[in-house]
Amino acid sequence: MTYKELQALDLKHIWHPCSQMKDYESFPPIVIDRGEGVWLYDKRGNRYLDAVSSWWVNLFGHTNQRISQALAEQAQKLEHVIFANFTHEPAIHVADKLVALTPKGLEKVFFADNGSAAIEVALKMSFQYRAQTNQPKKKRFLAFSNAYHGETLGALSVGGVDLYNEVYAPLLLNVVHTEGPDCFRCPFGESPSTCNAPCTQYVEEQLKQHADTISAAIIEPLIQAAAGMKMYPPVFLKKLRKLCIEYDVHLIADEVAVGFGRTGTLFACEQADITPDFLCLSKGITGGYLPLSAVLTTNEVYNAFYDDYGTMKAFLHSHSYSGNPLALRVAQEVLAIFEEEQVLTKLIPKQQLLKELAHEAFDHLPYVGEYRQTGFVGAVELVANKETKKSYPGEERIGYQIYQRALEKGLLIRPLGNIIYFMPPFVISEDEIKWMIETTKEVLDQYFKERCE
Amino acid sequence: MTYKELQALDLKHIWHPCSQMKDYESFPPIVIDRGEGVWLYDKRGNRYLDAVSSWWVNLFGHTNQRISQALAEQAQKLEHVIFANFTHEPAIHVADKLVALTPKGLEKVFFADNGSAAIEVALKMSFQYRAQTNQPKKKRFLAFSNAYHGETLGALSVGGVDLYNEVYAPLLLNVVHTEGPDCFRCPFGESPSTCNAPCTQYVEEQLKQHADTISAAIIEPLIQAAAGMKMYPPVFLKKLRKLCIEYDVHLIADEVAVGFGRTGTLFACEQADITPDFLCLSKGITGGYLPLSAVLTTNEVYNAFYDDYGTMKAFLHSHSYSGNPLALRVAQEVLAIFEEEQVLTKLIPKQQLLKELAHEAFDHLPYVGEYRQTGFVGAVELVANKETKKSYPGEERIGYQIYQRALEKGLLIRPLGNIIYFMPPFVISEDEIKWMIETTKEVLDQYFKERCE
Repeated sequence: MTYKELQALDLKHIWHPCSQMKDYESFPPIVIDRGEGVWLYDKRGNRYLDAVSSWWVNLFGHTNQRISQALAEQAQKLEHVIFANFTHEPAIHVADKLVALTPKGLEKVFFADNGSAAIEVALKMSFQYRAQTNQPKKKRFLAFSNAYHGETLGALSVGGVDLYNEVYAPLLLNVVHTEGPDCFRCPFGESPSTCNAPCTQYVEEQLKQHADTISAAIIEPLIQAAAGMKMYPPVFLKKLRKLCIEYDVHLIADEVAVGFGRTGTLFACEQADITPDFLCLSKGITGGYLPLSAVLTTNEVYNAFYDDYGTMKAFLHSHSYSGNPLALRVAQEVLAIFEEEQVLTKLIPKQQLLKELAHEAFDHLPYVGEYRQTGFVGAVELVANKETKKSYPGEERIGYQIYQRALEKGLLIRPLGNIIYFMPPFVISEDEIKWMIETTKEVLDQYFKERCE
Repeated sequence: MTYKELQALDLKHIWHPCSQMKDYESFPPIVIDRGEGVWLYDKRGNRYLDAVSSWWVNLFGHTNQRISQALAEQAQKLEHVIFANFTHEPAIHVADKLVALTPKGLEKVFFADNGSAAIEVALKMSFQYRAQTNQPKKKRFLAFSNAYHGETLGALSVGGVDLYNEVYAPLLLNVVHTEGPDCFRCPFGESPSTCNAPCTQYVEEQLKQHADTISAAIIEPLIQAAAGMKMYPPVFLKKLRKLCIEYDVHLIADEVAVGFGRTGTLFACEQADITPDFLCLSKGITGGYLPLSAVLTTNEVYNAFYDDYGTMKAFLHSHSYSGNPLALRVAQEVLAIFEEEQVLTKLIPKQQLLKELAHEAFDHLPYVGEYRQTGFVGAVELVANKETKKSYPGEERIGYQIYQRALEKGLLIRPLGNIIYFMPPFVISEDEIKWMIETTKEVLDQYFKERCE
């Protein structure tokens, strides 16, 4: 089939995620043939630097040899087995490692198969814990503005991005929503590098009023990713952790997007030196290969479910592919790569380079509100007015236009509204970082030049 | 590490799905090392015939050579790529094939990554369709007694098995629940082979009363699996399809468990000659290798979301691993195996053999209420009283005890309450079918003999 025929057949039958399919009339899907390192190659021979790690999942490059090899070997040994009453070495190994690597106090690992499911597991576990520890009034959740935790109805309920939630409002849980941090437009006029997170007063107020009905609060540590890589300092998390203890509310840390090194530490919670009651992991856990997720929790939570069968206290949640050996063997290899290849140490100069180049390239531009970076995630926020920080109207789709132009130059930066971000695989080279920033700058310059003409 | 050390390390950190973990004190997890065909081998060298296809996912045997090879090759080519604006040949191929193989009228394929997510996608699509076609009152769902559709809160809401739902009741959607078919204890005294499904009067009554507020009805075609392999004839589906059209309610067919040949036809809906508005597929779609799901729907539904971007009618649901090339390459191979190896044709004599042997072995036993079979799914319902069909009390955990005894003999039959069922991989041989039935019979005889002593 020709390239165009493949595109036509795709459009005949495939409904792509997170897409207005009518957009594909003028911008048909790019048919990728293969990937290698940070590069994706389409069937016409064009290549694209995957600066978004294919929705924030890829860590060590496309078709990483160690991972592909481990996967192929596991497929010859044990592709899957029911995970109730059965187990296998990759699962045991990964659970043991995760407990060792995550904040102290998280002792139990429950495997599921995508990020949304991990969130639902944490919500259900917290809820059931309350029911089984004589706190039946605690049945609601507290969520932050601009949060994103996934797309299944439970996960969606604790989201705060209208774009994803609004149409489904009648299907969503009655959640206590509160203001989260908003550092770029801080209502307190503080700077994230020096502030003491006065904005925690909002959540404190809600906890004061509603803690008797709240089972858990849920947050994305350090970066609210889907909202546009909104970043906030560890002090917010530290204070939130204290408040949750004070008001006897579980803290669910959703590190689906930020876990596995993205923020510069293996897990974002480390930077605030906190242990959440539930830690949700996915995406990078398989280095971008396969759907897998894990929820870690404390012995205290686990023990509230541990009883004679007849008490009916078990956590009956399951997915067919819970504990999938293929995904877990891949996760095992990912954890081994982190350890053996000193990934986080080697990332430090790349983070520094990205930061320097990006500030130099973007800070002075009249249409850039700020360039911000946490670990190896960088974001350029485009604004209509640098002084007032006024946004461009969503309907202009500036980010989308920049995205298309960058693709023509071989750069995949899929923006979030008017926020262009960089979250490349860790294996990106210094030259590729340079090229990524230069190309983004070129595209922005050209776009805004034409816009002003 | 020794076998016992592996078990201890597992129990130190892993919280297994669908398990009261305290049970593992006396019945620690079996550490599986490898699989081949219908057999799972533990690290002590014991083997187990996987008669439940590892939670109903495996079709062509563990570590099937064609599938493992295809997976290994794909891992060298393209392990993953963002599926918004990008695509690849395995996805295009699988979507095209699924449209060709599923009931006529299903034209669009939306990929997700587990069964629960597929259900949530269908519920959300139906709901949003109503909002976008000027039927905002239609915002509820209709679900059947004894239904099981998954574990995330949306999917759980349309379930009807108290065991999974009850504790979470305050978190679930306001669903219209109605009586489904109950052929073993038919309240109309009918036989499934001759009846005209008078029990559809229950759903008709609910539709008559509530159709103006109902967006979709959801059902597991032919077998309510998690409820205990409750089977019902195609005529029920046929009548339900008609009623849904009459009352303008979408029909969601959840073929997550029954799809891909389990009922003797590739999809269960074929036997009723119906096209649902949404068809949810998962489990067998990857032959038991990897989490993947698909929701198929009509152009009518698709078109209600197809508009200029600014109208905000897009379906924004996504999962990071939507359209995962590894899982889709595996699905492509699974569909090729079905076609090239005449799987369904070759299954006919095995179905027949299973049926004959099972009826012969179980029908006359005093503690067997019935042996029932649909396609290649067989179930023995144990009863305390053959005449009144009275069940054994759940707290006696008869099924669980039989399960443990069967494992000692190398047979993995994980029951659903007091229902022992057979849902083996299609590659099981005639001798293995014989051994599976004989061993089950032996275990049952021995258990009930001891019980009566």
